[in-house]
Amino acid sequence: MEKKDQRIMVAIDESQESMYALSWCITNLISDTPSNNKLLLLYVRPPSAVYSLDAAGYVFNTDVVDAMEKYSMHLANSVMERAEAIFRNLNATNINMERVVGIGDAKNVICRAVDKLKADTLVMGTHGYGFFKRALLGSVSDHCAKHANCPVVIVKHP
Amino acid sequence: MEKKDQRIMVAIDESQESMYALSWCITNLISDTPSNNKLLLLYVRPPSAVYSLDAAGYVFNTDVVDAMEKYSMHLANSVMERAEAIFRNLNATNINMERVVGIGDAKNVICRAVDKLKADTLVMGTHGYGFFKRALLGSVSDHCAKHANCPVVIVKHP
Repeated sequence: MEKKDQRIMVAIDESQESMYALSWCITNLISDTPSNNKLLLLYVRPPSAVYSLDAAGYVFNTDVVDAMEKYSMHLANSVMERAEAIFRNLNATNINMERVVGIGDAKNVICRAVDKLKADTLVMGTHGYGFFKRALLGSVSDHCAKHANCPVVIVKHP
Repeated sequence: MEKKDQRIMVAIDESQESMYALSWCITNLISDTPSNNKLLLLYVRPPSAVYSLDAAGYVFNTDVVDAMEKYSMHLANSVMERAEAIFRNLNATNINMERVVGIGDAKNVICRAVDKLKADTLVMGTHGYGFFKRALLGSVSDHCAKHANCPVVIVKHP
């Protein structure tokens, strides 16, 4: 049973579910034997473009766009910080890890990142929306399970 | 990073896709360090009841039912044998393994088996049907990814 070094991508957002998926991944997929497994921590920011028009179609002034941009950056940082707290809690600070921030529609960015960063496995949480919300919003994890070019682990929060 | 012993269930059928999922699981999830990880190999036979009527609604005579029952048993055995060939190929013969044969509608049997056998992870292949076939047949892996009470790994054949 030869086991080659794995590149494991975990897609995270600000949800409890994705933080649980990250813990699961660290505990179950990242082997605790010394290895060159690599963890790719991916956070996807919504595209800035959607911020440049408000609901009524007015173009926001630069201050507003800047503020939103700043907020989005802040959110990305805070998600990454929460992720690192999980690493510390699980005494997993010696993991070979890389942070990646993507911009765009989460489901497409994630699938493209799998290809681009040559991930061997993709790990995602799932929100467990009900039928109607799922029908309206679609599900990022559904989409990725079908379209990402690698095995996908769907972790549900218990 | 403490790692408790895992009970990993792999749902297999006669497809190439599920055999690939099994190989992936052995190589990536069943740690090669000595451990008490357990592999639960689940094969689901269709319920015998569906065989007792033919398409036109006639009840089959006992010979036909017997023959179909025998065929279904034969299929189960041949799937299990193909699975064991994979173990041998991967030099993974010392894995702690249990064979389970369920009877009924695959998606429900698999979800129930996860609960009953206390699986920590479920691994499945996926047929990658197109949109129309999926809409008609539904997808066992889709259903299980949503409803099984444990993390689900969806492995696509490359």
